[in-house]
Amino acid sequence: MHITKKLAAAHAEGRPTYSFEYFPPKTAQGVQNLYDRMDRMHSFGPAFIDVTWGAGGRMSHLTTEMVKVAQSAYGLETCMHLTCTDMEKGKIDGGLKEAYQAGCTNILALRGDPPREKEKWEQTEGTAFRYARDLIKYIKSTYGNHFDIGVAGYPEGCDEETDADAHIPYLKEKIDAGGTFIVTQMSYDADIFIAWVKKCRDAGIPESVPIIPGVMPIQTYDSFLRRANWTQCRIPPDWMKALEPVKGDDAAVREVGKGLVADFCRKLLDSGVTMHLHFYTMNLAASTQMVLEELAVTPATNTHDPSIKPLPWRQSLGLNRRDENVRPIFWRNRNRSYVARTQDWDEFPNGRWGDSRSPAFGGLDAYGIGLKGTNEHNRKLWGEPKSLQDVSELFVGYMSGKVQTLPWSEAPISSEAHVLTDDLINLNSRGLLTINSQPAVDGAKSNHPVYGWGPRNGYVYQKAYLEVLISPTLIQTLIQRMDANPDITYYAVNNSGELKTNAPQDGGPNAVTWGVFPGKEIVQPTIVETISFLAWRDEFYHLGSEWAKCYDEGSESRKLIREITESWYLVNIVDNDFRNERGIYPLFEGLQVEGVESSPKAAVNGAKETNGHAHQTKDENAKPELNAVPDGNNAVNGADKTAANGDHKN
Amino acid sequence: MHITKKLAAAHAEGRPTYSFEYFPPKTAQGVQNLYDRMDRMHSFGPAFIDVTWGAGGRMSHLTTEMVKVAQSAYGLETCMHLTCTDMEKGKIDGGLKEAYQAGCTNILALRGDPPREKEKWEQTEGTAFRYARDLIKYIKSTYGNHFDIGVAGYPEGCDEETDADAHIPYLKEKIDAGGTFIVTQMSYDADIFIAWVKKCRDAGIPESVPIIPGVMPIQTYDSFLRRANWTQCRIPPDWMKALEPVKGDDAAVREVGKGLVADFCRKLLDSGVTMHLHFYTMNLAASTQMVLEELAVTPATNTHDPSIKPLPWRQSLGLNRRDENVRPIFWRNRNRSYVARTQDWDEFPNGRWGDSRSPAFGGLDAYGIGLKGTNEHNRKLWGEPKSLQDVSELFVGYMSGKVQTLPWSEAPISSEAHVLTDDLINLNSRGLLTINSQPAVDGAKSNHPVYGWGPRNGYVYQKAYLEVLISPTLIQTLIQRMDANPDITYYAVNNSGELKTNAPQDGGPNAVTWGVFPGKEIVQPTIVETISFLAWRDEFYHLGSEWAKCYDEGSESRKLIREITESWYLVNIVDNDFRNERGIYPLFEGLQVEGVESSPKAAVNGAKETNGHAHQTKDENAKPELNAVPDGNNAVNGADKTAANGDHKN
Repeated sequence: MHITKKLAAAHAEGRPTYSFEYFPPKTAQGVQNLYDRMDRMHSFGPAFIDVTWGAGGRMSHLTTEMVKVAQSAYGLETCMHLTCTDMEKGKIDGGLKEAYQAGCTNILALRGDPPREKEKWEQTEGTAFRYARDLIKYIKSTYGNHFDIGVAGYPEGCDEETDADAHIPYLKEKIDAGGTFIVTQMSYDADIFIAWVKKCRDAGIPESVPIIPGVMPIQTYDSFLRRANWTQCRIPPDWMKALEPVKGDDAAVREVGKGLVADFCRKLLDSGVTMHLHFYTMNLAASTQMVLEELAVTPATNTHDPSIKPLPWRQSLGLNRRDENVRPIFWRNRNRSYVARTQDWDEFPNGRWGDSRSPAFGGLDAYGIGLKGTNEHNRKLWGEPKSLQDVSELFVGYMSGKVQTLPWSEAPISSEAHVLTDDLINLNSRGLLTINSQPAVDGAKSNHPVYGWGPRNGYVYQKAYLEVLISPTLIQTLIQRMDANPDITYYAVNNSGELKTNAPQDGGPNAVTWGVFPGKEIVQPTIVETISFLAWRDEFYHLGSEWAKCYDEGSESRKLIREITESWYLVNIVDNDFRNERGIYPLFEGLQVEGVESSPKAAVNGAKETNGHAHQTKDENAKPELNAVPDGNNAVNGADKTAANGDHKN
Repeated sequence: MHITKKLAAAHAEGRPTYSFEYFPPKTAQGVQNLYDRMDRMHSFGPAFIDVTWGAGGRMSHLTTEMVKVAQSAYGLETCMHLTCTDMEKGKIDGGLKEAYQAGCTNILALRGDPPREKEKWEQTEGTAFRYARDLIKYIKSTYGNHFDIGVAGYPEGCDEETDADAHIPYLKEKIDAGGTFIVTQMSYDADIFIAWVKKCRDAGIPESVPIIPGVMPIQTYDSFLRRANWTQCRIPPDWMKALEPVKGDDAAVREVGKGLVADFCRKLLDSGVTMHLHFYTMNLAASTQMVLEELAVTPATNTHDPSIKPLPWRQSLGLNRRDENVRPIFWRNRNRSYVARTQDWDEFPNGRWGDSRSPAFGGLDAYGIGLKGTNEHNRKLWGEPKSLQDVSELFVGYMSGKVQTLPWSEAPISSEAHVLTDDLINLNSRGLLTINSQPAVDGAKSNHPVYGWGPRNGYVYQKAYLEVLISPTLIQTLIQRMDANPDITYYAVNNSGELKTNAPQDGGPNAVTWGVFPGKEIVQPTIVETISFLAWRDEFYHLGSEWAKCYDEGSESRKLIREITESWYLVNIVDNDFRNERGIYPLFEGLQVEGVESSPKAAVNGAKETNGHAHQTKDENAKPELNAVPDGNNAVNGADKTAANGDHKN
């Protein structure tokens, strides 16, 4: 969606908006960490993010890659920077094409910084465009209105030769050429900014073109001074007075700084010159988050409010993917991998998992599908298990929030899942290793803080789901019990490909999450289905074997993990009676893996935390605060022991 | 579906089955009446029906037309008779092709009766096949296994030259040629039949080939004797003893006859030679129904149990239509018209009303779309209304079951709708003329006797729906009220094409009936949608103008009906909150058409009948008996004043 359209809609309703800027990190690990951070910062509710263009295009492949991942995997409306003076036309064409293919519809068109070795900017030989306005015209001539085109503004001057006032006619030229919004250089002086905006309007830049202030949160005293100096922006004297005394204490600098920056932002918002704030995050989350909290702008005030989830999973903004609204449940804790493995699909399921689709999932070699992190890092995370008891305790640790990730769950268990875990802790403490789960929901209101998604005045439903890794010694008993229960459908596989299921042969997919909304067809965004489960099975065992390889050849740990991934069964279970209070858990009564002893401590933990859940879900009005907002992409490896009800008795 | 496959499935579960044979009537009115009767007899639960081949192919166009309507509009598994000795090859090819295109997969391949003028059968000049076995081979060679092919059996001999035993080798030849089931000539002597079946088996006709007895229910004494004589079948002496004394009293003959025929059937079923009964209905319903009731075979014992509805509307068995599972609600009381107007669609919606579909509904000139019956007949049905009060009373009459049809509802209000009518009677008595409606259902079990459909262990839901014809004097007030209610979506049109709606612009169809079943995607078989509503609007006003034309040019009645259809608004209303008890009816509070005075009697009627409903829906185990089974195709122009609940409190 065009940024200007998105902002206009929010501002028309009086809601301020904000955005985050990121740059391509220099290392692969840095990229991985940034993705995780972008994912987490999604929950702060930015209206869009933007990604800078690697200087001279040297890092441009990373820029386009980041744009693609942000759009497709994280569903973040993304604006791509593009510079022209240091770029050959072929590179510009390539960048625009990749942005287009990623589903990106917003470009920030820039002239570009002068190369480091030159003191002053000049056009590089062989480049196509001298000025940003030329680039804008070129984009318009090749892509029509596909891209919303932003331009840079300089409230305190652009370089030594051009002061702020002298720059305004150039800015006007860029707007006349097709620019539709202006993002400014960082600035800390509200009066200067406000006065400059007035001059821009006087010069004929229409009100319909938003002038967005660039805001640089304060991280450390040194970086604050360096950046302000580099961009020649004025620091109000009282800022120095406030920061100077604490300059040696980074935490104190951030604390004081957040107040100063928030005041600056508030002045701008109050003045009416802008309703949008653009944060230069420097790829860090903390100081931006602190400013947002200080401003008391919560996601609920934002267009991109992540608590108003259009679907129960993060919707992709990739090209052709915008209508996608059905996915298998298996990748819930590995969203990016699902997007990567389906990126070559010509068409994405819309409305239902169509019969006509025979999805061919991509192989396991694509970027982002394997285990994250180094072997050393992973050994630190998951220890060196030498017995099934150790593995059981690792899983219990994850369920209770003490372990941050598991090979099959990329993020820590969320705070919501954390309070849903007593059954899971119980199962895992008996060596029944749970991978993924959701509780039954019998019609919660669509604005329910935990289960809600979709338009207002709707009802959402879930069938209880559990995915669990089962020892071969227990599989027969479990299957017998499942076969005896008419409400249960299951699929069980092992690494050698055997598939057992009681799903109806012609039954097609099983919808396990659906919603009923005013004036709409039923939306059924999450399904359980054979072909995709087999694709997930491959990924699952592949991750298991990668986990085994974290340990030295010949080590006890490698042998143990390999044995589990080679012989245990991956079982998914749906309780089709979504009004049933606890259909799945009695299936496991009395089952215990030999060599695993339940820790009584784990059980107590679970019981205690369940009370918290009961409280939270009963009070629908208790909307979580910004920092308690559920992060849709985190592992929700939790199942309630009661079917969650919206507003009526079961 | 192949008849043998269908019967085998039922018989494997120990359920006996039965089928009905019809022949093409000689007049258009006869055809219409027969369609209505076939439709009604659907609720008796035949596993299939068959349609005889017009002698010498003279009526063959009517045979194929009946096969098509039975398959497509009434969803009856149909077997088409085809004779060969009196037919040119081109006619046989044509008949097979039409059967194929109608979605018919069963043929009864016959030699054919000798032409009347000849005493004895001989091959007509120019015909392609002399024996049924030749026809069978030809069908196999041209259509492979598409058709299940039945053949005729003669337990008491075929003609004067061939006695029963002598015929068996020919029968065996027909089976060897590709016949897969045998339907016999009528017979009343169980011992003869049982012995003959044994001989057939001994002759090598395998058990996998069902030998189906033809059963001729007794209508009148004369016709009973004539038919038995014509087919040379033996009448057991005690039958004559029982029938002779009452032969002058048709009702008594039928009453005695049903016992005799039922005894005969029971003997056959008990003997184990057959689990299927084939009734020669002679196009009449009563005596067949009496035998079925006497046998106490209810639809619940039958494969084609109409109380186990796969969908809330009658599913079509037409070619390409078998997967169709979404329809607009508007044609609920005019099923055949919907099928006719969509018969040229290349593809039918499956799973949802797809975005890709832009349905072009057929015009209003196709057969079966206009008003049924002669003008005189219709004036008798609907009277000659001279005031809005008269029209109001006509509608109240229909709602309370006193009037059999309305121009927009082809069948009497069903017994289920009858007990749901207090709100409707109330509205109509105020001149708010209701056309179609359904109550809200918040998750009734899928085997609920009134609301249930679809596989076992599921839950079905409905949004409350009302379609109503509104005087232009009231439309503004109604629209204001609807606009003020966030749970209501509506479409309002008039004959000049004006469309008002508050449906979301990009909202697409609104699912108003859906079901949740084990191991399946959500099924949403009934929708409200713009394009189809506009197609229904055309049909609606066309029927209105046909009604007006039932009255003489210049008559008061014609003027009145024309005025209504030219100026009143057709409004459809959905209450999207399916948990709301009565969202739609308060919209009409205080609205009354000028010149219409509510009859207090109507109100009393309604109130009384509602009690009946409350009783009926609360007791889920009270399965209706055969003769109380809801006829899916009848008008269910009724709405409950409370949301119907499955098994939980709201």
